[in-house]
Amino acid sequence: MSSYTIDINSDLGESYGAFKIGADAELFPLISSANVACGFHGGDPKTIDATVKAATAQGVRVGAHPSYPDLVGFGRRAMAATPEEIYADHIYQLGAVDAFCRVNGVQLQHVKTHGALNNVAMKDPVTAEAIVAAVKAYNPTLPIFVLPHTEMEKAALAAGLPVVREAFADRAYNADATLVARSRPGAMITDPDEAAARMVRLVTEQTIRTIDGDDLAIEADTICVHSDTATAVAIARALRAAFDAAGIAVRAIGNR
Amino acid sequence: MSSYTIDINSDLGESYGAFKIGADAELFPLISSANVACGFHGGDPKTIDATVKAATAQGVRVGAHPSYPDLVGFGRRAMAATPEEIYADHIYQLGAVDAFCRVNGVQLQHVKTHGALNNVAMKDPVTAEAIVAAVKAYNPTLPIFVLPHTEMEKAALAAGLPVVREAFADRAYNADATLVARSRPGAMITDPDEAAARMVRLVTEQTIRTIDGDDLAIEADTICVHSDTATAVAIARALRAAFDAAGIAVRAIGNR
Amino acid sequence: MSSYTIDINSDLGESYGAFKIGADAELFPLISSANVACGFHGGDPKTIDATVKAATAQGVRVGAHPSYPDLVGFGRRAMAATPEEIYADHIYQLGAVDAFCRVNGVQLQHVKTHGALNNVAMKDPVTAEAIVAAVKAYNPTLPIFVLPHTEMEKAALAAGLPVVREAFADRAYNADATLVARSRPGAMITDPDEAAARMVRLVTEQTIRTIDGDDLAIEADTICVHSDTATAVAIARALRAAFDAAGIAVRAIGNR
Amino acid sequence: MSSYTIDINSDLGESYGAFKIGADAELFPLISSANVACGFHGGDPKTIDATVKAATAQGVRVGAHPSYPDLVGFGRRAMAATPEEIYADHIYQLGAVDAFCRVNGVQLQHVKTHGALNNVAMKDPVTAEAIVAAVKAYNPTLPIFVLPHTEMEKAALAAGLPVVREAFADRAYNADATLVARSRPGAMITDPDEAAARMVRLVTEQTIRTIDGDDLAIEADTICVHSDTATAVAIARALRAAFDAAGIAVRAIGNR
Repeated sequence: MSSYTIDINSDLGESYGAFKIGADAELFPLISSANVACGFHGGDPKTIDATVKAATAQGVRVGAHPSYPDLVGFGRRAMAATPEEIYADHIYQLGAVDAFCRVNGVQLQHVKTHGALNNVAMKDPVTAEAIVAAVKAYNPTLPIFVLPHTEMEKAALAAGLPVVREAFADRAYNADATLVARSRPGAMITDPDEAAARMVRLVTEQTIRTIDGDDLAIEADTICVHSDTATAVAIARALRAAFDAAGIAVRAIGNR
Repeated sequence: MSSYTIDINSDLGESYGAFKIGADAELFPLISSANVACGFHGGDPKTIDATVKAATAQGVRVGAHPSYPDLVGFGRRAMAATPEEIYADHIYQLGAVDAFCRVNGVQLQHVKTHGALNNVAMKDPVTAEAIVAAVKAYNPTLPIFVLPHTEMEKAALAAGLPVVREAFADRAYNADATLVARSRPGAMITDPDEAAARMVRLVTEQTIRTIDGDDLAIEADTICVHSDTATAVAIARALRAAFDAAGIAVRAIGNR
Repeated sequence: MSSYTIDINSDLGESYGAFKIGADAELFPLISSANVACGFHGGDPKTIDATVKAATAQGVRVGAHPSYPDLVGFGRRAMAATPEEIYADHIYQLGAVDAFCRVNGVQLQHVKTHGALNNVAMKDPVTAEAIVAAVKAYNPTLPIFVLPHTEMEKAALAAGLPVVREAFADRAYNADATLVARSRPGAMITDPDEAAARMVRLVTEQTIRTIDGDDLAIEADTICVHSDTATAVAIARALRAAFDAAGIAVRAIGNR
Repeated sequence: MSSYTIDINSDLGESYGAFKIGADAELFPLISSANVACGFHGGDPKTIDATVKAATAQGVRVGAHPSYPDLVGFGRRAMAATPEEIYADHIYQLGAVDAFCRVNGVQLQHVKTHGALNNVAMKDPVTAEAIVAAVKAYNPTLPIFVLPHTEMEKAALAAGLPVVREAFADRAYNADATLVARSRPGAMITDPDEAAARMVRLVTEQTIRTIDGDDLAIEADTICVHSDTATAVAIARALRAAFDAAGIAVRAIGNR
């Protein structure tokens, strides 16, 4: 029996019509939770249906991955959307993906906001509260993925939403538990073995080495493997092998 | 107590961001069911939320009004979409509008496919079956609006979906119960009193006068007032006055 | 013969398919230059064609009115677009509107960036330079509308682009010649006669009264009447009457 | 010195933001003309700019590749667009791509309508005439790609537009010079050597073997290698090798 349990999540289903993106087929066997694009930054209806089916067939749980409405920018550009727009955009996207869960006989497991909107919500309480209000209005028992020590976590906890703390296998950390900006050297952890070793330590010791070389205490319920990192599949494979060796079970947050 | 009961429906919530369309505020007090645009031909998330709230506040029931993905064409152009695309597009749009029903504490009452897609489904069994399959997969108790004697009615009945037969206050009828093509003279009934008299007879005698002057037996559960007909509000007002005078109660199909 | 000459511009052609917006028909006889939406915040191809035709038929000159790609937000939401995106988006939109000028036998008179992107460019030199680089690359003799004393004016002058200084009939001014934020009381000048009197003084004395009650020296080559101000048509009419009375000729910047 | 000259064209620049599609980098060195997506089925502004730059750097000429407005369907679904819409959509897209030619110092070489719209125009004179009217209005000297013996060729010839007759390296032909429907077995020529041998014969003997095994007389000015055929790059390479061996020069239609 495993002493430790962790979830591995990845952003999938981001293809749009004829436009294919991401290594979904390779990642499905390696992860336990899929964040499924909802149509605003990727993910047309047929793709969402196929992604929910593929996830379910491989025992992967489904979450919604709502975004700013910015297909050409892939949801990676911050926008001055109002809280009312962010709230309504989340309701719309939650309902759309949940409908595909419903017709495929599975339950929507979680919400993880995408890209620039998630980044803004980390720091901006108004945005974080709009997102949390939408999730709570839609389903107050639906877990939301948050980076620890952010406005998003604060808003979710204040609203009584179930919170899933997320760590990133492919990112370096600052001393205050925020992620090192991608523009800084060393921000990305691209070596699969290094990423795996860091995540084993995170799960077993609740500790991660910061970019400055110090130890940081941090807890995580799920580990994200960015599907658009070049070495995503290699990192996911290394994680699984290292977790097996360390007696860490990979299990979706909704399957515990 | 009323001897007769009928539903009056209209397509509402079709505005898109700053682009306002339709006489929603004037029509809400006159109808019992609203077909709410789902974002593909009109209806952004904030508009859907506001429309569901306004409908609910005025006792109007909410249906989803899915379309081809054609915002610039307002869903009025037939497209060679595959059955798989039509199925998935319907699931997506049903879920999106249903989410706003959920957060506003109401139940989604029905589905009425919009514009060109609805017209295609009248005649094309493959399209009709794709729509019906989507509605059934989403919720097999969800009523679908159909024009009697069409492929859509046939498919819905074959699938065991609840069927709501629709008549049109502002349209002339052919001898075979189809609508007279808009391009033909006399296709549109624009005089409010004429429209009202025709609909009273339809409800009380299950009969309508065709464009050729003959009587046609036809039954209807709901009457559509097209919100984009110039005299829509006047027609809706005339209908209500004539129905009151004739002892016909206006009641949503889900409220009986 | 008139002692003074001024251009009056308005944002037109912002309808999108079935979605009609703006008082184009009423404004065309009252203005000399139209800023035509290019499809990114409004303005589908058929609308652009019709707008260029209507402008030309009424002696109104045509400019392009490029925006962020944000139809649902009507281009009113700032976005973290890169300079490369802003540059390419401008080239694309300039070419699209210019094509309709070409097929209708008229010359593109000017460029005026729309909404949030224009506001960002006022203050952000990187955005301003991206816009100016696009206009210059497309046509180095194409005049660009700028608010005086902004980064946009600075960038345009540095690049040697012809600059058209713009004033706003319906907006109050701060002491530093910036517009009073719409959120502040008194920011909007909605009284047509007041707007007209202010603009006569601006043209004849190069002076405007600030919100603090002081006189500010400011020059303008064109006056904007916002088509989405409720009293837009009334303001435009009052402007024309007051200008006639004051001997001010209204003439497009390209017609001098 | 070559006895024969032919153009090789391919549809490129169809990526959309983060969504990459097509083997542009591999195909550029093998072709002489690029049909550049204009934003309606693929091709965002930054992609168009980069594609025009890459084409130009490698001596490939640029054409516009306009489509129905159907990004999610990649322009492959016929739509009941009106002639006015098709006309205006073409003007818009021609202008947009031409703007990138202008800022990159090259001349727009040709127009080739994309996908479903091109297929419809082959058979429907109203659609063909709308496209031809747009090209002629935009630039009456701009060559248009047509399949011989179609309504598109007829309309272009009637309008006096320069016509470029196109053949397809990867498609089988019917006895009447139309392409064999993709749904029929043998419709696709996927073997690079077979495709190359067929095209050498087409260029040198103006003859092609039909699917029924007969010889068909047919002339071509340009040969299309579909960038989305799995063996597109292999076919293009085989073409170039076979053309070199046969003394056939590959040269863009605008470079003769």
